[in-house]
Amino acid sequence: MPHALSVSRMTGNRSTFPQWYQAVVREADLAETSPVRGMMIIKPWGYGVWEEMQRDLDRRIKETGHVNVYFPLLIPLSFFAKEAEHVEGFAKEMAVVTHHRLKSADGKLVVDPDAELEEPLIVRPTSETLFGDAFQRWIQSHRDLPMLLNQWANVMRWEMRTRLFLRTSEFLWQEGHTAHADADDAQRHTMRMLEVYRAFAEETLAMPVIAGEKPENERFPGAVATHSIEAMMQDGRALQAGTSHYLGQNFARAQNIRFQSASGALEYCHTTSWGLSTRMIGGVVMTHGDDDGLRLPPAIAPQQVVVTPMLRDRPEDAEVLAYAEALATRLRSERALGERVRALVDLRGLRSADKRWDWVRRGAPIIIELGPRDAAGGQVTFMRRDDLRDGEKIKSSAMARDAFVAAVPDMLAKIQARLFEEAKARLDANIRADITSFEALADYFGAAADDEDEGGAFKGWVRAPWSRPTGAALEAIDDRLKTLRLTLRNTPMGQTPATGRCLFTGEPAVEDVLIARAY
Amino acid sequence: MPHALSVSRMTGNRSTFPQWYQAVVREADLAETSPVRGMMIIKPWGYGVWEEMQRDLDRRIKETGHVNVYFPLLIPLSFFAKEAEHVEGFAKEMAVVTHHRLKSADGKLVVDPDAELEEPLIVRPTSETLFGDAFQRWIQSHRDLPMLLNQWANVMRWEMRTRLFLRTSEFLWQEGHTAHADADDAQRHTMRMLEVYRAFAEETLAMPVIAGEKPENERFPGAVATHSIEAMMQDGRALQAGTSHYLGQNFARAQNIRFQSASGALEYCHTTSWGLSTRMIGGVVMTHGDDDGLRLPPAIAPQQVVVTPMLRDRPEDAEVLAYAEALATRLRSERALGERVRALVDLRGLRSADKRWDWVRRGAPIIIELGPRDAAGGQVTFMRRDDLRDGEKIKSSAMARDAFVAAVPDMLAKIQARLFEEAKARLDANIRADITSFEALADYFGAAADDEDEGGAFKGWVRAPWSRPTGAALEAIDDRLKTLRLTLRNTPMGQTPATGRCLFTGEPAVEDVLIARAY
Repeated sequence: MPHALSVSRMTGNRSTFPQWYQAVVREADLAETSPVRGMMIIKPWGYGVWEEMQRDLDRRIKETGHVNVYFPLLIPLSFFAKEAEHVEGFAKEMAVVTHHRLKSADGKLVVDPDAELEEPLIVRPTSETLFGDAFQRWIQSHRDLPMLLNQWANVMRWEMRTRLFLRTSEFLWQEGHTAHADADDAQRHTMRMLEVYRAFAEETLAMPVIAGEKPENERFPGAVATHSIEAMMQDGRALQAGTSHYLGQNFARAQNIRFQSASGALEYCHTTSWGLSTRMIGGVVMTHGDDDGLRLPPAIAPQQVVVTPMLRDRPEDAEVLAYAEALATRLRSERALGERVRALVDLRGLRSADKRWDWVRRGAPIIIELGPRDAAGGQVTFMRRDDLRDGEKIKSSAMARDAFVAAVPDMLAKIQARLFEEAKARLDANIRADITSFEALADYFGAAADDEDEGGAFKGWVRAPWSRPTGAALEAIDDRLKTLRLTLRNTPMGQTPATGRCLFTGEPAVEDVLIARAY
Repeated sequence: MPHALSVSRMTGNRSTFPQWYQAVVREADLAETSPVRGMMIIKPWGYGVWEEMQRDLDRRIKETGHVNVYFPLLIPLSFFAKEAEHVEGFAKEMAVVTHHRLKSADGKLVVDPDAELEEPLIVRPTSETLFGDAFQRWIQSHRDLPMLLNQWANVMRWEMRTRLFLRTSEFLWQEGHTAHADADDAQRHTMRMLEVYRAFAEETLAMPVIAGEKPENERFPGAVATHSIEAMMQDGRALQAGTSHYLGQNFARAQNIRFQSASGALEYCHTTSWGLSTRMIGGVVMTHGDDDGLRLPPAIAPQQVVVTPMLRDRPEDAEVLAYAEALATRLRSERALGERVRALVDLRGLRSADKRWDWVRRGAPIIIELGPRDAAGGQVTFMRRDDLRDGEKIKSSAMARDAFVAAVPDMLAKIQARLFEEAKARLDANIRADITSFEALADYFGAAADDEDEGGAFKGWVRAPWSRPTGAALEAIDDRLKTLRLTLRNTPMGQTPATGRCLFTGEPAVEDVLIARAY
């Protein structure tokens, strides 16, 4: 039995991984490049995954006391001027709106030069400045705090080299923005949202992550502290999968966000922001995909059980169809993972085997093939996407219908757990903690010429003690790491105090830091 | 007892209606104008209403076989060129992106002149061209049809005079785009989606509408037929509340959307599109608001029952709070209108009376005030927002807790029904069908100088027989109506054949048309 994809992620040569990734995104019908440079079309199956992710994360965000809002797409240039002034590393690649009208000229449609805007408008790359402006108007007293807002929106950052989901000029995300009366409350909230992201990644996406603080050089511009969750992809590289920033009073000072405290004094707020985007769909692909395509955790599968009836344009078809629909109806009345089971009958006029392979590539957790014999015998023949093969052979099981329906909730929960455990075992097994010098690090990772050509064998991450250098010392380390195309990821939470010496400086270590190649 | 708003919608002088509308949007805390010209900030309560609307309409759209997708925000100028060529009345007020980078110059942040785009990009005013381009790639065979897609997105049309929700440069909407094998299927789908909008407006928003076809001059540019639902606002004006377009093969020819039919022939598809936007929130305000603020139909109220505990910084507070939380928990386990009851305990540190009035203005359907006596006696004292006053006096009722909890589902259903019936009675009572000449029409409506100054008494709509004139004859009628600031709304569905003569042409009538002032 051949594999569903022509490109393998597992042939030992890491250079095929980017091709494998593209093949899964294409064959699972998640998304495609659009005729608009750097922007993607998210196709129904990909958008369905995003809808499930959004619904789950939105619930978690609301349960932690936030309400959703919607702010304008376009931001006046002058709003960024303030930020650019006080923020080093302010990114300037943005889409700029300069005109508000087209006109016909010589039978052609052109930009009307008479319709130039007085002030250019920027397509939001993030909305800190607009939320800050609103905080400044909406917050008067300590009674208004904390103010806990979230927004689901599209944002845009002009990207030269793009890759579906992982790096596109436009992407979808949620951005949380909160204001607090004091540092302690804001810092606790930053960590609370990092924990929301960790739980979402691990419980819903079945994606194990390591939560920790980013080193100073990797902070969000203007932040006092940036925290991230980092996930290990199947090529060993790290994906930053969500970030939570404690902004101190920096943005509050720049935007004059003040409140009257209980004692009557006028004080600056402490603010936070945190975001998670459609990039996570790419992370799901690179965490759970295999040589047959995508494998979706049931919690985010738009359809958890897909029934593919074998139809032959014969009178028996009616019976098979009725049996399939009745089965799907019964499945939908069951609950799994806290929700109604999502079941679909695939009625497309394709060959049954083609439909089955289509759902294998898309990663539907349970795929049922129903023929006249199943209908007559009251049974169900099915495949589990997480356990598809015995060697090269496709595994399928048969059960009596009632027993199958009753077993589905537990089966979906098991698939969810198994995908997590598999990825967790890979993460745990691939963090080396025995590398103690830069030379050993260079030796382990080797040099690689180019982002797209990893070469060589699978390399995971390195966890090493360090002395938490800052400023120029940190920059020098960052430069050395760049020669190996490595980056500092984060300093994991809940560490026991580090012993030994810093891998970089040789000074006494204060904590461990993760080092990896990254997306 | 004073009313919650300082401006009344009901003082007989229609000129106060726009001020009343603004007051409700502000006092119900739905939205505000942003520092970005023509764009609004949708605040938590307003966005909460949109989330409920979106959830309900999304379900209806999925139940009719559609899947959601996401297309790029920016569209190349050349995509519109084709459309502008063959479409009269192509609107040209759009936001144009011309550059992709800022830079610092003399300490200021400016648009980088070296980063001009080769081709200008337009912020989508609607996505027909992008969907058409995808249809052309995705559709090969009749087996791919119908293709039924929907998108939830922000869109932008540059507006000079804006009004919150009703007309803003950026707004949120859903846009459906479908492709079909033949005219019959596409036309039936156009009507199916019109019916989805009608049912959504009437059942979910409690907003009675009249569904019908727009006259030729009011068609979407390029459409073969445009249908709408029209709702009557409390100033008598019509609000077009959703449109469904049958596009024939016009867009398919312009974008080369073809398929191989069962017989092997290459044919152009027939396409449809349909949209409904945040404008509907404005419609809800103008349908259900009163002099105390907004009244929300329970189906779209972010919170259906709000508990305002009376807290006095005394030991009894703990008991009141515990009682309030227990009550909310019990309410949340009940189901009403097909969903879990949404109940909130308002813990803000405001005076109890202020909190209660805040929820009156926001239009929460049931508002509970709980004091130590309620807690001790196991009772609930509440107001119904749809039945707030007895004359000028505020009505409140008391019930034993268990009886109250048991009564809430039915009470919410009754509030939903009552708001609909009230608006339906107003609609039915205010369509005159006895006006048979243009002179009588002019006499009835009178002239009004300006959009913002209606003056005079409430005027509803006129339903009159007409001969369905087209072309220049229709344009002449349209011009005459404009002098009275009137427009043709639609020709209602399911009419009995018209008798008599056309109000405009004097020719034998073929059907009735609705005439009204409109938003």
